[in-house]
Amino acid sequence: MRVAVIGVGMTRFGKHPEKSLVDLFAEAFWEALNDANIELKDIEAVYFGNFVGELTDGSANLSGFVADEIGLKNAPAIRYEGACASSTVAFREAVRAVKAGYHKCVVVGGAEKLLSAGTAIGTRALATAVDGIYEMTAGLTFPGVFALAARYYGKKYEIPLQKLREMIAYVSVKNHRYGAMNPKAQFYGKYGDLKVEDVLNSKMICSPLTLLDCCPMTDGGSAVIIANEKFAKDVCDKPVYVLGTGQASGGSLFRQEDDIIKAIPRKKAAEMAFKEAKITPKDVDFVEVHDCFTIAEIIALEAMGFFDYGTACYATAEGVTSMDGDLPVNPDGGLIGKGHPVGATGTSQIYTAVKQIRGEFKWNQVKNARIAMTDTLGGDFGTLVNVILGVD
Amino acid sequence: MRVAVIGVGMTRFGKHPEKSLVDLFAEAFWEALNDANIELKDIEAVYFGNFVGELTDGSANLSGFVADEIGLKNAPAIRYEGACASSTVAFREAVRAVKAGYHKCVVVGGAEKLLSAGTAIGTRALATAVDGIYEMTAGLTFPGVFALAARYYGKKYEIPLQKLREMIAYVSVKNHRYGAMNPKAQFYGKYGDLKVEDVLNSKMICSPLTLLDCCPMTDGGSAVIIANEKFAKDVCDKPVYVLGTGQASGGSLFRQEDDIIKAIPRKKAAEMAFKEAKITPKDVDFVEVHDCFTIAEIIALEAMGFFDYGTACYATAEGVTSMDGDLPVNPDGGLIGKGHPVGATGTSQIYTAVKQIRGEFKWNQVKNARIAMTDTLGGDFGTLVNVILGVD
Repeated sequence: MRVAVIGVGMTRFGKHPEKSLVDLFAEAFWEALNDANIELKDIEAVYFGNFVGELTDGSANLSGFVADEIGLKNAPAIRYEGACASSTVAFREAVRAVKAGYHKCVVVGGAEKLLSAGTAIGTRALATAVDGIYEMTAGLTFPGVFALAARYYGKKYEIPLQKLREMIAYVSVKNHRYGAMNPKAQFYGKYGDLKVEDVLNSKMICSPLTLLDCCPMTDGGSAVIIANEKFAKDVCDKPVYVLGTGQASGGSLFRQEDDIIKAIPRKKAAEMAFKEAKITPKDVDFVEVHDCFTIAEIIALEAMGFFDYGTACYATAEGVTSMDGDLPVNPDGGLIGKGHPVGATGTSQIYTAVKQIRGEFKWNQVKNARIAMTDTLGGDFGTLVNVILGVD
Repeated sequence: MRVAVIGVGMTRFGKHPEKSLVDLFAEAFWEALNDANIELKDIEAVYFGNFVGELTDGSANLSGFVADEIGLKNAPAIRYEGACASSTVAFREAVRAVKAGYHKCVVVGGAEKLLSAGTAIGTRALATAVDGIYEMTAGLTFPGVFALAARYYGKKYEIPLQKLREMIAYVSVKNHRYGAMNPKAQFYGKYGDLKVEDVLNSKMICSPLTLLDCCPMTDGGSAVIIANEKFAKDVCDKPVYVLGTGQASGGSLFRQEDDIIKAIPRKKAAEMAFKEAKITPKDVDFVEVHDCFTIAEIIALEAMGFFDYGTACYATAEGVTSMDGDLPVNPDGGLIGKGHPVGATGTSQIYTAVKQIRGEFKWNQVKNARIAMTDTLGGDFGTLVNVILGVD
């Protein structure tokens, strides 16, 4: 039996110092429950994604507290940690559990508080997603990982660095434009009319990436309710089906034999999802990809099979991934414009995909959106999950 | 189709400052792979439990590194965190995935490094498993949680405190005795002939619990390989089947309406496991329970249904849970004698259960062991998982 998403919710992404991780998840959950038009008692289990609650809030083992807070006392509740892919890992496992008949209906989501943790704690926390022994201790944090990737990309595909910087800056311009339109986004109403020059001239973080090449730190929560097809059809006018999912892993960066810019684990995860969905990249109407940095969006689109290696930067600069292009990418602003509350990011992509497919994403609606694909990357290509959603 | 455990491995529990979390898991894995008599390529996914790698080793997002280290490059790999139940949560999910036909054969395990992290970091790390806002900030750490439970137990069942202290001390005497016999245990060759007086007279940690009422901090890793029945029978002379599993959650301690000494989430998890296995407590030959403190073993045995509430302390003092009693409990020494490397504890219980059922636990073999039950508790009744294993 197929599995459908029947309700979605998310907090405004931004700064929420007054709310706990449990509060943020719960707020997103109530919106999802209301959206799903079901009763609390219909939900049988909780799949919760969180990356570094231990470091930012002093709290691990949150899944039981989360379940209790939303009224699901004693329900089986699991916390998944796969860095930035935490809630997408949870989503895939939840889908498989419902598909196998273990549950009729469950909630999946995540929460994170990085912005209100402050830059020092937040940066240290984020760095735990790289290899803690051989990479972090060598000074490698994420701007460094993706600056390396950007430089290698330019070298490999023989693109002069300045030319590459200009092309990837379009990712920032585009995603900030869409984020500024999205009331749930951290940068709602801000940075909507950036120019490429603004990106090039903003503060250098790790050459060649400037501040506007980077996603922000963010607090937020997201939640989606999934159910088997029978229950979904009983309660829902327009269930959005999970057509396919894929997951793969990568070792430490220095042990990834092939080019990191090819993102081999992502290629494998995407192929797994396409195979299960029985479609090809050509069938996808729009995508949500993991643009933690501008170059990351380019690498993602190529590994997922939407563009040949070395070409997505040209396509982006030409507008192919804009709303009026052939393949709109990150219509909600992506991590760069919407924000990146790590544990909540994966299911916030599902939120956008479902709202778009239902035709409810009125502030930046993709025309005739029927099939969407999401992509979440945990660490430096350590945990990759892709999800394909659609309607009949 | 049924699911079987076909290989088990664990490191010596103790102090391993020179080994990383990945190293500890890998060492256990190689033993399990050798035990299973299969090839590496037969293993399709990694289910990895770890509680506080972020805090002790600066490493989250370890599942991909773990997969890469053991040669399963790019395999789907998931990290589960449910405090002390982390690897049992992973085990249950792995069993469900294999049962549903998603995989033929997978590895499940865990690792933790608390002893070599030192007391200050270790204590702070462990405390993240209680509610971080309302409990930890009030000074509640785990000796406090279980000292409260012990006092409440005495009050509720009208047992004078000194009498109760004497009775629960038998748990320490018994589990240390068995731990001293187990070459994999932290206290192998030590504390094998403790007397009740030794427990009562050891250093007071949190009244009424003394040092010998507490399990130690531990480094270690464990791993088990599970497979579907068909593959298990192809490669294995004596597969040990997973007869049933159960899981439930609890909210913050102060929100658990019923007595904490009744451990309601554990009762629900155990009932779920018994129902799936289609057996009753009377059918179980021996159990591995979560004796993080002496009183914890008593509470566990009652909630699981082996003794009426308020009676397991008498039964323990009378020897019912000793090797020559009706229900041997923790023949490997339990957390108190074997050690408690949190993320590795759950699958180390499965290790013992399987070795016992195969008749290979020669240093302390339960006679005619055919059906075993394990019990792991994460936090202060936040995450509970029970597993029943057996042979035809």
